[in-house]
Amino acid sequence: MQTPRCIAIAVMTLDGKIARHHHHFTDWSSPEDKQFLREFLQRTDIIVVGHNTHEIASKELGKYNRIVLTTSVATTERKDEKLLLCNPESVDVRPLLEPYKLAGILGGMDTYTYFLERGLLDELYLTIEPLVFGQGLDLFASTKIITKQFKLESVKRLNERGSLLLHYTKL
Amino acid sequence: MQTPRCIAIAVMTLDGKIARHHHHFTDWSSPEDKQFLREFLQRTDIIVVGHNTHEIASKELGKYNRIVLTTSVATTERKDEKLLLCNPESVDVRPLLEPYKLAGILGGMDTYTYFLERGLLDELYLTIEPLVFGQGLDLFASTKIITKQFKLESVKRLNERGSLLLHYTKL
Repeated sequence: MQTPRCIAIAVMTLDGKIARHHHHFTDWSSPEDKQFLREFLQRTDIIVVGHNTHEIASKELGKYNRIVLTTSVATTERKDEKLLLCNPESVDVRPLLEPYKLAGILGGMDTYTYFLERGLLDELYLTIEPLVFGQGLDLFASTKIITKQFKLESVKRLNERGSLLLHYTKL
Repeated sequence: MQTPRCIAIAVMTLDGKIARHHHHFTDWSSPEDKQFLREFLQRTDIIVVGHNTHEIASKELGKYNRIVLTTSVATTERKDEKLLLCNPESVDVRPLLEPYKLAGILGGMDTYTYFLERGLLDELYLTIEPLVFGQGLDLFASTKIITKQFKLESVKRLNERGSLLLHYTKL
């Protein structure tokens, strides 16, 4: 069994927050980060995204092949040609990814954590925006400590203010 | 009344964690980050540090002027020429900083948060180490959302693996 290359893409504040709360739309990220996300999406064969993030971004994501992780279905349910719902508590996502070569993991927190905990994160594109929330949602919320080592492949400053795009691969 | 320039210095994982738990010694940061910390300490007139962090790092910090934030004293208590204990719940730290020009804020989480919440963070040196904990202590743990804007002044790659030193100033 082969899984595709799984690449997470995330934007966070310099204090490591991906949102203020679960329904917080990403209206605080830079135009340059949004542009990078659009370009990234075109490289993917499949995107995996949590229910909340999918709701928030449904307009932008509609044209891509998606697996949406949600507890609203018992196991899996195909909604249309491009959209499969999957309950990650009852179904292993990996076999569903087999037909694909490059999966984009778009979050949010629970979806990033699902892939981290199963050792499925091959790469991570992390944009760090130069602001602080002081509290909010983390990139990961694992129930146990999972130390994973990465290597920084590249750093790109996206704008004058200092939004920073970091590219990591797992060691 | 004038407060010194307050510069926080912190090391975190790429998922925004400064430690696994409150008594977790920073044995996971790179030698290059530790070297930067030593050089930084020599520039400071005073360092401000929480009780736990002070305990963990007492050997390295003993030669510097320190204010240790702790609830173990009612208000303030001078222990020796270089060490002042201060209870941040009963005493405003700002007047104690007046004699100084450059204060190094060394953490941990509660100490960083104290300075963030009072708008006292002028600069931040943040080292991002290329690993993940999945859970742990955040840089800040504010009881309310505090959006603060910063500007990225510089980026320095510290080693081959990709420890990254970011320097931010407040906007």
